[in-house]
Formats: sequence, C-alpha cells, structure tokens
Amino acid sequence: MSLLVVGSVALDSVQTPFGSTADALGGSAVFFAVAGCLLHPVQMVGVVGHDYPIDRLERMARRGIDLAGVERVRGESFRWKGKYSYDLQNRETLETRLGVFAEFQPRIPAQFRDARYVFLGNIDPELQLGVLDQIRAPELVACDTMNYWIQSRRDVLLRLLRRVQVLMVNDAEARQLSGDWNIYRAARWILGHGPRYVVVKQGEYGAVLVGANGVFYVPAFPLEQVFDPTGAGDAFAGGFMGHVARTGDLSSDNLRRAMVVGSAMGSFAVERFSVDRFDTLSAEELGERVRSFGELVRFDIQPYAVEPV
Amino acid sequence: MSLLVVGSVALDSVQTPFGSTADALGGSAVFFAVAGCLLHPVQMVGVVGHDYPIDRLERMARRGIDLAGVERVRGESFRWKGKYSYDLQNRETLETRLGVFAEFQPRIPAQFRDARYVFLGNIDPELQLGVLDQIRAPELVACDTMNYWIQSRRDVLLRLLRRVQVLMVNDAEARQLSGDWNIYRAARWILGHGPRYVVVKQGEYGAVLVGANGVFYVPAFPLEQVFDPTGAGDAFAGGFMGHVARTGDLSSDNLRRAMVVGSAMGSFAVERFSVDRFDTLSAEELGERVRSFGELVRFDIQPYAVEPV
Repeated sequence: MSLLVVGSVALDSVQTPFGSTADALGGSAVFFAVAGCLLHPVQMVGVVGHDYPIDRLERMARRGIDLAGVERVRGESFRWKGKYSYDLQNRETLETRLGVFAEFQPRIPAQFRDARYVFLGNIDPELQLGVLDQIRAPELVACDTMNYWIQSRRDVLLRLLRRVQVLMVNDAEARQLSGDWNIYRAARWILGHGPRYVVVKQGEYGAVLVGANGVFYVPAFPLEQVFDPTGAGDAFAGGFMGHVARTGDLSSDNLRRAMVVGSAMGSFAVERFSVDRFDTLSAEELGERVRSFGELVRFDIQPYAVEPV
Repeated sequence: MSLLVVGSVALDSVQTPFGSTADALGGSAVFFAVAGCLLHPVQMVGVVGHDYPIDRLERMARRGIDLAGVERVRGESFRWKGKYSYDLQNRETLETRLGVFAEFQPRIPAQFRDARYVFLGNIDPELQLGVLDQIRAPELVACDTMNYWIQSRRDVLLRLLRRVQVLMVNDAEARQLSGDWNIYRAARWILGHGPRYVVVKQGEYGAVLVGANGVFYVPAFPLEQVFDPTGAGDAFAGGFMGHVARTGDLSSDNLRRAMVVGSAMGSFAVERFSVDRFDTLSAEELGERVRSFGELVRFDIQPYAVEPV
C-alpha cells in the first residue's frame, strides 16, 4: 500500500510579522512527506541542487521517508522568497529562482512504480501526467495545481483531471478552473471532468470535501498563534493521503476522516516556520488534535422537530 | 419566556447579479422576527414612517410577531439601497435615507418589559443601552453592532458590552473592536469585556461560537444558488435567539444547537430576495435543514490513535 509524492523540494525564505527564515526546508513534496510519514512510509520524488542541506533531508528520511527518488544534480536548488502581510491573509513573492527545478523531469525509481496512493504536488501538469505514465496501477491519485497552470496549461490540466480521483485546490483555483464563483457549483463542474472528489481548501476557514454523494466540511483548527502559513496545503495533503494509505479504505466515510487528519496536519504546519513543527510532533499530539476537531463541531440536534408555535 | 427584538424596520432596494428589488421589506428587526417567529413568538420594537406597507407587516404579525412596539410616525421610512458584486462578496451602499429612523428612540411597551430574551439589532449603542434600561430582568441579551459605532461610539459600546451576554459580529467587526486580526484572540478580548459568548459570523464560510469553555464551529450551508445576502446575519440571530427562547436552556450545549438553527435560518434568508423565503418556510423544511448540518460535519474518528509507523 505504498504512498508516493512528487513535487518541489525547495529552500524557502519567508518573512512574516513574527520573524523570518532564510533557506529553510520547503516545497510541496517536503511538507507532504513530513506530515504523511507520521501515518505511513512516504516515497519521495523530486530534485535538488548540490547546495541542498542534504543532512536535513536525511534526518527526515529516518522518520520513514524514502529519498530514493530525490535526484541531486549540478546547479542551484529551487529557492522561493516571500513575504506575508501583517494578518497573514496575503503573500507577495519577492523572488523565485527555479535553479535545477526548471529542468525537473520526474523519474520514478523502479521500486516506487507499484505505488497505490499518489500525490502530485503543484508542478506542470505535463510532468504530472508523465508521472502517472510511470505508475502501474495507482488506486487513488490526488493532485494539486495553481493559477499559473490553470491559465497556461488548461488543456493538459483537463487531460490530467481524467486520471485523478481527488483534486485538491484552494477556492480561488476552483473558481478559476470552473469559471464559476460559487464554490459548490465549481466543485460540481470539476466532478464532471474526472475526479470523484474535490477538496476545496479555504485557508483560515477550513476545507470542504465534495463528492457525488455529499459534502463534508471541516473547519480550520482554532489557533491563536499562526507563524507561517507556508506549506499548510501540502501538509494537509500529507495527512489526508497518509491516512488513506494507512487504512487502505477509500469509502467516503474514511475520506471524511482523512479530511480531519489533513486539517490537523495543516494546523501544525502553520504553528512554526518551515517544517519545524514536525520535528517534534508526536503521535499523541496528532491524536489529541484530531479528537479535538470532534469537539469543535459537536452538537446533538437530531432529530430536530419544530412544532408550530 | 418572551423574546424581544429592537432594530431597524426598513425598505430595501437591492441589486444583485440575479435581479433587483425596490422598497422591499428589510431591516434587522424584520429579518430577526421572520426567522425567530418560526420558533417562538417575537415582540418587535422599531419605527416606520406613514409610507410603510403596513399590510405586509400585518401579514408577518399573523405568524406570531407582536408589533405593539412598532411606532408609526409622520415622515419617510428608513430606506437603504445597495448593490452587490457579481460574486456577492462585496456590497456598495448606493443610498441611505434614514427618515424617521434618524430620531428613533426605542420605547418598550409596558407588556414587553418582562422580556427574558432580548436581541439588540445594529443601532446606536446609546439607544441599545436605553433599551436595556427599560427591561426588568433579561436573562440573555444578544447584540449586534457595526464598524461605524465601533469607531464613533467606542466608549458607549464598551459600556453596553458589560450588560450583554452574547455579542454577534462579523469577523471584520471583531477585528476592529479588539484591534487584533486573529479571530480567536479577538474573541478572547471581547470575552474579557463583558459577554459570556461571542459569535463571529464569517459569511459564506460559517460562524464560530467562542465561550470561556470552548469553541464551536458551524459551516455555512452549502448553497449552489445565493440570491441576496442581505439580512442573513439578522436571520441567523432570529434563529439563534428563537431556539434559546423556545428551549429556555442557556447551557453551552444548547447554544451550539442555537448556532445550527441560526445558520439554517441564515441560509434560508439568502435563497430569495428580502424576507420572501420566510413567507413559505415550513417547520419541516427547517427541521430537514438543521438535520443536514449534522451530515455536513459528521465523522467518526474518536478515539483516533496513531501507532508509530
């Protein structure tokens, strides 16, 4: 029941009102892996330059991340520099240096090609399709994308969607892709183009899972301190897919649970800079947070009968 | 266990991408009352001019709204004209004519002064305080306010808060009032200034109840068609307070139920223009929607134990 992630392995320099980082671990594959590996071993595919702090990656590896698919090539690693507004609602990209990521051609090692659960991080949909061509018989493929690909690679993205079971996007992306500002109509549009489920991430509010048979909403965990929103979506995906791989259960009830585990992971991601929170995150802390989501939405109103007054 | 609302009784002219209304029933007291009266009789206090379509108010009255506190005075009724953006996310006020509302001095009829449950719609906090001075021993007072009063009547508003048990505001108002952009810190600040509970309304996302002992989140009902967001917050308040008055139960578990009933009412309000949806809303429809909130957030993940992988 192996779990594979393909995505960026980056060095992030992030400024928030609470401090800043320089060349810290980042990238979709990294955030996914540090969250997912708490639940299930993760196979990681990506590319780094020779300047990458490989010791930090190797420390991650010891927690159950197989780095056999992470190529090291001559050149600079992918670097992203960004700055968040005082309320963390908006971010500005200050600099993007693609480095070796510009020529990334994901090669799936032979021993990863039987992966059952696959997460395609936000890269060119052409490359995402190329990954699927190398996987024998995936049971559940989830993928992310972004405004840039929706605009510039729309046709390829639509071809990709036909081979994806779960699309995970934020609300702006769902709106852009479908051309509909109503989130639920947008989700239905997406369901008509391939995926069986859509996860629409709504940042500080929560995330919604839409399938043919229903809608499930999980609020964001109430946090009084948010340090750095970077990577929350990928940590969410890591928790979601980690739970799916761990249980091997694709029922819609189990995907609801995966949403909650994903939200818990997203909430941990933003409590520290970079992937720092996952250095110490314990199974007990994860279990406690997951349970507290139950309390967050608990009410007993069924059946609710209103007699005429 | 009487339920009293004091607020505006207006004539709204609203433009949305789906059509427009002219001089339709509106105002905080009206939206509150049409929702609340499905659950419990409502006593209404407000003011209208002689041009108000009193037949429409009288039709409302037949559903359990006591209009003894609605004064008719010489002059024009309060009129508001607004326009929503294509995605209903923003609205622009095109015209406000206060008319007789400018001189509104709420006078609580003798037979309303024993009200147990009181909702103070969004009016000058000085007037809201004046209302409380006329009520003998209210058990639960909830109130709304807005950016204008937070800025121009801050001191009076803070005095009012000491006599209010539930403050219901949207997220921007909670941030402005507390000076803190984090919703949960903002809520805690408000709890430190009088209220036992804060309801932070987040529009299309949902609403959160924060008290000393916990946080409860209810998502907005997933709607594929939203016609007119006007009045959703007051209909929410009507559902919330109607449920409280109906049950007479101020436990935090029951306030969670009140949140769900409030959200259901808010979701009905936006399905049609003005208060039109409430003309036909049945107890069965309300019960069904309330139950569907249970399905929207249902998951069974407790206890969630993560064994090390």
